[in-house]
Amino acid sequence: MIREDVAAGLGKKKCDAAVVGGELVNVLTGEIYKADVAIKGTKIVYVGDVSNYMGSKTKVIDAKGKHLIPGLIDGHVHPESSLLSMTRFAETVLPSGTTSIMSSLDEYATVSGLSVIRYFLDEANKTPLKIFLVVPSRVPYVPWADTVGGYIGYKEVAKALSWPESVGIWEATVDLVMKPDLELLKSIGETIKRKQTVHGHAPMITGSLLAGYLAAGIRSDHESFSKEEALEKLRSGLKVMLRDGSVIKQVSTLIGFIKENKAIDTRGVSVITDDVDVEELVSGHMNSLVKRVVAEGIDPVKAVQMASLNTAEAYRVDHLVGSIAPGKIADIVLTSDFKDFKADAVIANGKLVAKNGKLLARLKPPARPRKIVQTMRLNRKITPELLEIRAKNPKALKARVISMQVPPEAPIRFRREAELDVKGGVVKPDTSSDVIYIATVERYGKTNNIGKAFISGFGLKDGALASSMAHDNHNIVVMGANTRDMAVAVNHVAKVGGAQVAVRGGKVVDELRLPLCGIASDLPAEKLLERVQSLNKTAQSFGSGIKRPFMFLIFIPLAAIPEYAVTDQGFFDVKAQKFINPVIEETF
Amino acid sequence: MIREDVAAGLGKKKCDAAVVGGELVNVLTGEIYKADVAIKGTKIVYVGDVSNYMGSKTKVIDAKGKHLIPGLIDGHVHPESSLLSMTRFAETVLPSGTTSIMSSLDEYATVSGLSVIRYFLDEANKTPLKIFLVVPSRVPYVPWADTVGGYIGYKEVAKALSWPESVGIWEATVDLVMKPDLELLKSIGETIKRKQTVHGHAPMITGSLLAGYLAAGIRSDHESFSKEEALEKLRSGLKVMLRDGSVIKQVSTLIGFIKENKAIDTRGVSVITDDVDVEELVSGHMNSLVKRVVAEGIDPVKAVQMASLNTAEAYRVDHLVGSIAPGKIADIVLTSDFKDFKADAVIANGKLVAKNGKLLARLKPPARPRKIVQTMRLNRKITPELLEIRAKNPKALKARVISMQVPPEAPIRFRREAELDVKGGVVKPDTSSDVIYIATVERYGKTNNIGKAFISGFGLKDGALASSMAHDNHNIVVMGANTRDMAVAVNHVAKVGGAQVAVRGGKVVDELRLPLCGIASDLPAEKLLERVQSLNKTAQSFGSGIKRPFMFLIFIPLAAIPEYAVTDQGFFDVKAQKFINPVIEETF
Repeated sequence: MIREDVAAGLGKKKCDAAVVGGELVNVLTGEIYKADVAIKGTKIVYVGDVSNYMGSKTKVIDAKGKHLIPGLIDGHVHPESSLLSMTRFAETVLPSGTTSIMSSLDEYATVSGLSVIRYFLDEANKTPLKIFLVVPSRVPYVPWADTVGGYIGYKEVAKALSWPESVGIWEATVDLVMKPDLELLKSIGETIKRKQTVHGHAPMITGSLLAGYLAAGIRSDHESFSKEEALEKLRSGLKVMLRDGSVIKQVSTLIGFIKENKAIDTRGVSVITDDVDVEELVSGHMNSLVKRVVAEGIDPVKAVQMASLNTAEAYRVDHLVGSIAPGKIADIVLTSDFKDFKADAVIANGKLVAKNGKLLARLKPPARPRKIVQTMRLNRKITPELLEIRAKNPKALKARVISMQVPPEAPIRFRREAELDVKGGVVKPDTSSDVIYIATVERYGKTNNIGKAFISGFGLKDGALASSMAHDNHNIVVMGANTRDMAVAVNHVAKVGGAQVAVRGGKVVDELRLPLCGIASDLPAEKLLERVQSLNKTAQSFGSGIKRPFMFLIFIPLAAIPEYAVTDQGFFDVKAQKFINPVIEETF
Repeated sequence: MIREDVAAGLGKKKCDAAVVGGELVNVLTGEIYKADVAIKGTKIVYVGDVSNYMGSKTKVIDAKGKHLIPGLIDGHVHPESSLLSMTRFAETVLPSGTTSIMSSLDEYATVSGLSVIRYFLDEANKTPLKIFLVVPSRVPYVPWADTVGGYIGYKEVAKALSWPESVGIWEATVDLVMKPDLELLKSIGETIKRKQTVHGHAPMITGSLLAGYLAAGIRSDHESFSKEEALEKLRSGLKVMLRDGSVIKQVSTLIGFIKENKAIDTRGVSVITDDVDVEELVSGHMNSLVKRVVAEGIDPVKAVQMASLNTAEAYRVDHLVGSIAPGKIADIVLTSDFKDFKADAVIANGKLVAKNGKLLARLKPPARPRKIVQTMRLNRKITPELLEIRAKNPKALKARVISMQVPPEAPIRFRREAELDVKGGVVKPDTSSDVIYIATVERYGKTNNIGKAFISGFGLKDGALASSMAHDNHNIVVMGANTRDMAVAVNHVAKVGGAQVAVRGGKVVDELRLPLCGIASDLPAEKLLERVQSLNKTAQSFGSGIKRPFMFLIFIPLAAIPEYAVTDQGFFDVKAQKFINPVIEETF
């Protein structure tokens, strides 16, 4: 193997492809200069004058007038958040120049545990997109608040760390480190012992708390919320990943510390998306993000480093990816505009896979086994009554209400209170003051739990919306102006094995099926997008003033971000880390 | 363990020491700003305002008016080349701010194999100096040219890679990769599989040969001989280590590519010494090297990065050393002059170990077991006749002569020819044209080989010099104007278990004993230096015009550098990679 690689590097066999006439963006030195690239198999064999490597069968890829940048890397992304299956995600991001992602596939693992990670890794390995596995440090991430289908603790982490795709563990949350969760600490120790990397999750953590967190051996973090926080983390030795996805857009804020000190060493800075939806993905992925960084006034070569070399170094895979150099995997993007970063051609694993934003050969998702498409274990029919919030006698009461930021820029919830009527022991939603029901229905056949609460901010006047893609537990989250539509929505989602639905007047009026673990679809991106847009439009016809209500609905069960969440176990106060009653007082 | 570290990071226990009032050189961001450092045990727990970490028992280290730089790292050094034992080497370099070295201890391994590496690692672990082991990729490095005592192949490499100190393998020579030496290729594969690093050895290799070499998975190299070569290697993805030791001084040449493009990304550039003698070490080590880099006009922070963070990243130990940040090992140097880099105080593993160039507590070498001090296996008495070069009948002949560069700047030998008289079948040295005898006598009791040749450049008019520290085989190298003195020298070296000696008139007139594997001494640096200087002076009294003749004598058996070498197996043509006859023609 090494022997053949050496022979290819020496040029003893003619190369398969040569990228000729372009300007090389050498992220290793920060230089740009004319250089051609010879490719043999999956690897770059030579960079420079490649004429000696070319033969009659060498495919010539014309790069005249174009810059060659390394295949782009998303250093922290949940591809599941796009609702696209693994193959469809690969198909969607490759044409924009993303050739590697770091991911844990933890959304799938939440539903079905470690075996499903292996399943989707195997699927990814059949596409030109590389996944470097960053093993979920813990599933569920908030074990005391969620009922989920899969479980990952130390034993599972240790197993996954031995897989060849593994580069470490991720989302080692500051809460669990501090608790301390001994299972997690063992996993961190194991990761470091194996010379892999520990990727953290420490939102708004600075000062002593950050120092304590770093002492655990955390290497990187993607949860900065201010430029000061990002700078402090970088100074403290964290590899800092600036997030700019569909849910949270922070680059223009966080990049501030670099804008203010252009001389700062940015080797420890990457850009990542975390969660990105199909609507954005169809027009670009990491290339759009690099474009946004450059638009902020950052040197384009440094911006490219943030989506290539720096990310590869953060996960210690810079010997494989992240630069265009002999011996590296041949992942190369040709772009004619060094500000726009539109990908004119994309080479992944040595093969030209996309031109002008189009994949050269469509990928085909595999036939899906039962373990992937039959993950719904709802044991009973949900009745409207099960979704009601009940109170004993009074006519009205005060309630705690989850209040979305409007317009939502991040899925962060604030606290609100509201007075609600009680009729026949049932606390009534009040669409006039924008207070409706929200519930999370356990769907793994383990507890039959239903957590219930009130929410405002979505603006629904009628009907119900439900989704079985629901962070971080993927139970069925449902929101509605009435419990009848809510019940219909939940039962339909369960019946079809996973979906997002809009129900009105007791009827399913719009839906997107999510058969893969109840959270993802094999629809091609454009078809999926059509469904997503239709569903959001339908939700707007129910009164919602939010552009993409489903995008925010699916984060309501997430117990890891402030202030309130609704898990299957109830209404959760994130700061207090306990379950509380949505009803404050029963009698006025 | 992690739990206690976290508690310390949070400040739940008061810190042991605090470095207060200094200017932090943050190599992670390239910034310099005021910050204090709290230390607990061996680790840095906080950087910034450390008042909350300080208690009544906290030792305060005053850093007013000083810069704090990370403990310096020599990324490629053979400590044995200084002739100092492990403990004495640590004692000598710590006061100048070196707190980590990357080394293979391969000189010892050449004598006694893997077990002796373990022995000296254990010794190093008792000092405040850290050794990161870069396992010798092969012993001997040129297996077809040398007889040595130890052997390291794939099996031994695999074993050593599992040791906690191991960070990879080193000196994976371009010759063996290209041959290919399958044992080495297996070791490279094993290293990469274990997520460790492959450090190369590729002098004057560029273009396709470099590409082929890189294809094997080589990560770093310390053998650039021109700035163009260094730049090409950096652009090609190698971590480039610029060498400036006692034997070869290249920084002022190699740094050229950075001087010419100050904007170049230098994250992949380190400085290292390779071989450094005790004469230099007593006045400084890596701090002197950083000073030399800064004197070349390089930004001081970048220069410091080249001896700290960059080196740590090259070997993927930046999570442990190379920067001053929470969670890292507390290795800190206080320097009041950011151009001179004199170490005013040195903290290693959290302890103040040196002040104003003096170690606070002298280290004590351990008692030495027989396996360390009895490594001479010369089976017979060497007679003058055994060292003669003989020819059949003529009165004179032409001979090939090793010609040292004079004055020598590198131990590189050129080719020269000379006419020599033959008397009684013996080819006579001719001191009038500066041609004398040189021989390498096998000393492991394996072959009784004696390799013989002629040499010029040392200028010896009389007497003989011998050394059992002799790269890369540590047989006994001996050079002399007559074979009687040469024989006395060899026999004496063998009798005392290893030494460097000067013999004249059949008598040992000066010597330095090297009892540890025949190559190193437990003398403290200043005593050793006195001996080394005395020996060189004595050699000069024999006629040598070279300032440090022993330093160059010990490289003559090295079969890895051009043009000629003398191993125990004979006179070696390095370029042709074969043994040749020192006598060209026997009859005129």
